[in-house]
Amino acid sequence: MLTLYSYYRSGTSYRVRMALNYKGIAYEQTPVNLKEGDQHGPVYRRLNPQGLLPALQTSDGLLTQSPAILDWIEETHPEPALLPAGAHDRAKVRAAAAIIGCDTHPIQNLRILKYLKNELGQDQAAVDAWSQHWIAEGFNAVERLIQQTKGPFAFGETPTLADIYILPQIYNAHRFGLDLKPYPRLRDIEGACEGVPAFRDAHPSRQPDSPAEG
Amino acid sequence: MLTLYSYYRSGTSYRVRMALNYKGIAYEQTPVNLKEGDQHGPVYRRLNPQGLLPALQTSDGLLTQSPAILDWIEETHPEPALLPAGAHDRAKVRAAAAIIGCDTHPIQNLRILKYLKNELGQDQAAVDAWSQHWIAEGFNAVERLIQQTKGPFAFGETPTLADIYILPQIYNAHRFGLDLKPYPRLRDIEGACEGVPAFRDAHPSRQPDSPAEG
Repeated sequence: MLTLYSYYRSGTSYRVRMALNYKGIAYEQTPVNLKEGDQHGPVYRRLNPQGLLPALQTSDGLLTQSPAILDWIEETHPEPALLPAGAHDRAKVRAAAAIIGCDTHPIQNLRILKYLKNELGQDQAAVDAWSQHWIAEGFNAVERLIQQTKGPFAFGETPTLADIYILPQIYNAHRFGLDLKPYPRLRDIEGACEGVPAFRDAHPSRQPDSPAEG
Repeated sequence: MLTLYSYYRSGTSYRVRMALNYKGIAYEQTPVNLKEGDQHGPVYRRLNPQGLLPALQTSDGLLTQSPAILDWIEETHPEPALLPAGAHDRAKVRAAAAIIGCDTHPIQNLRILKYLKNELGQDQAAVDAWSQHWIAEGFNAVERLIQQTKGPFAFGETPTLADIYILPQIYNAHRFGLDLKPYPRLRDIEGACEGVPAFRDAHPSRQPDSPAEG
């Protein structure tokens, strides 16, 4: 049995839950409370010295970094596929994923916002503006990239890795109060993902560590 | 013939040059001057609306986002391989790549540093401290991840995708004056990469748009 070290509201944990659920892979979750700093505690640090989530314990050892874990899932459990067949089409899907995974999410995750507050003395309004700015930049780029593709998912009638990056970022955007009106394709993707039980079950409000009112 | 839109000093362009050279793939470079803002000019924006480098023009269309381009290169030109054979080993290499590609490089690239200066009013010392902080975080994580592996490269005797992410980040770290003493494995990798002609030819000082004093 796989063990996923995760936090209900972590976008990168959410990605991995979506992929595991979609492939029908059994796993159990061990919550690590990011807000209370448990990722820096000795127990988790011994396991994953980087102190970041998620991490996936497999029979071969511990895997870290959600992009690497997602590729591992796709390679070890190819069906249902989360990448198209041709190299060019795969690269398009991966580009959309990278816009979120490299250029958007890491710039406004918790450790960055803490640095802005604590080391650079920024107030909450400035921190929120930072998050909104970089999410909007990323969403503008993804929306344009997939404008030519048919929906309802980012690349057609079935989900791909792109949707697995986009949905948690939309969840995050809602938290920061970003207006999604300028992104009709992204809103379509959110709606389409709501129709996928595997993705609904991966939602932050449905995890073992979700607050009761979730 | 492939065309790479790149900037000599861009770390993500450097990655793609390393991979293309290592695979012996012919390409020509069209420089886009990041410092003068040419990535936001109408010519490049028409081609790549995100206005980021690099982009690779192939016979099937334009590819963007270096992680996607690198996977495309590996899939279309598998030899010499930049990823090991087994899924677990591949995931380890990809985790090292993602530590740099997601958690390090994007946080201290040009557009972020400009925002810190212009929108948040930070001075050069604060901006440099920001860069050094996040590069050190990333290097600490990679150094620990590969501590158990044998060198001289990140994962053994031949280069992998991990080295292709690490070398440009080391180049970048030198620019920000980061002390590399705490990272013996990374310094080994830098030395090993210097022995690979394909990687030497990818160096920022040897590109068509490198300043003459290179």
